[in-house]
Amino acid sequence: MHQKDTVVRRLKTIEGHIRGISRMVEEDTYCVDVLNQINAVQASLNKISNLILDDHLRHCLTTAVRGDNPEDTERVLKEITQLFEAATKV
Amino acid sequence: MHQKDTVVRRLKTIEGHIRGISRMVEEDTYCVDVLNQINAVQASLNKISNLILDDHLRHCLTTAVRGDNPEDTERVLKEITQLFEAATKV
Amino acid sequence: MHQKDTVVRRLKTIEGHIRGISRMVEEDTYCVDVLNQINAVQASLNKISNLILDDHLRHCLTTAVRGDNPEDTERVLKEITQLFEAATKV
Amino acid sequence: MHQKDTVVRRLKTIEGHIRGISRMVEEDTYCVDVLNQINAVQASLNKISNLILDDHLRHCLTTAVRGDNPEDTERVLKEITQLFEAATKV
Repeated sequence: MHQKDTVVRRLKTIEGHIRGISRMVEEDTYCVDVLNQINAVQASLNKISNLILDDHLRHCLTTAVRGDNPEDTERVLKEITQLFEAATKV
Repeated sequence: MHQKDTVVRRLKTIEGHIRGISRMVEEDTYCVDVLNQINAVQASLNKISNLILDDHLRHCLTTAVRGDNPEDTERVLKEITQLFEAATKV
Repeated sequence: MHQKDTVVRRLKTIEGHIRGISRMVEEDTYCVDVLNQINAVQASLNKISNLILDDHLRHCLTTAVRGDNPEDTERVLKEITQLFEAATKV
Repeated sequence: MHQKDTVVRRLKTIEGHIRGISRMVEEDTYCVDVLNQINAVQASLNKISNLILDDHLRHCLTTAVRGDNPEDTERVLKEITQLFEAATKV
């Protein structure tokens, strides 16, 4: 992954964010405020996923599609479709 | 689009489904039943989107990535990332 | 439903929007443009769902929770949780 | 929150899961496997959100709707609508 450092750094930030949410729950913070913080974490995870996907398309997918193994192309295209299905929960 | 007939036929079915939901609302069907029907339409639309995307990856994207115009490759990859961002609402 | 007319009118608009998308597919519009239009329809459906939910909370739910039948309260609360689960596809 | 212990325990598990994903990225695991693990974390977070929401509906919302302060009722109902809007990203 080309954006490895950025991705790892952002995952560390999310770890801290979740630790903060645990603390909010332990200190009886109002439910809706906790839910909003979980939403914020979900948004951060979406951003990381999109960063990784972009990296994947520009490197792994491009290499596979340009290569001379049709099975590799088939596999990477199928993976993209499955990721979309997971994102839209078909 | 290679799956044109399937996509058009499914879109017609969804049109009928939405007409049915309008009728439910006019006849004062219980809100939660209406909401569940709207969810069902959303799931059908997701399935159509995934069908179109699969078609797009196998034809337009593959052609662009294998072609000799780097701008075409850049454009199709960017479009895929944007579709994911729209799906996950980053 | 108190917002019946608004909801029915918006559903009619969506029906027309989907008819337009069928036409786009028949006329071989570029896949990504079709996908963006399907996304727009889904955003409109989400707005309608939220309008109906708001109506439901202010009337059906409030009446049930204030009534003297605990089973009614239990049912409406469970329905809300299920709608959230459907929205977040748990 | 009545389900405090369950929520805190699950958040700790998620923290560990994210730490594991960081490690996968550092060890150059295949992008698609990383993306699938991020999806799994998001599904776990959705389950926690639904647990907290269920708790909130049964306690805070019920109390507010049955209380004699119309502003409290208005506020909790509006919060539910906003959580739905956030979940469906209207």
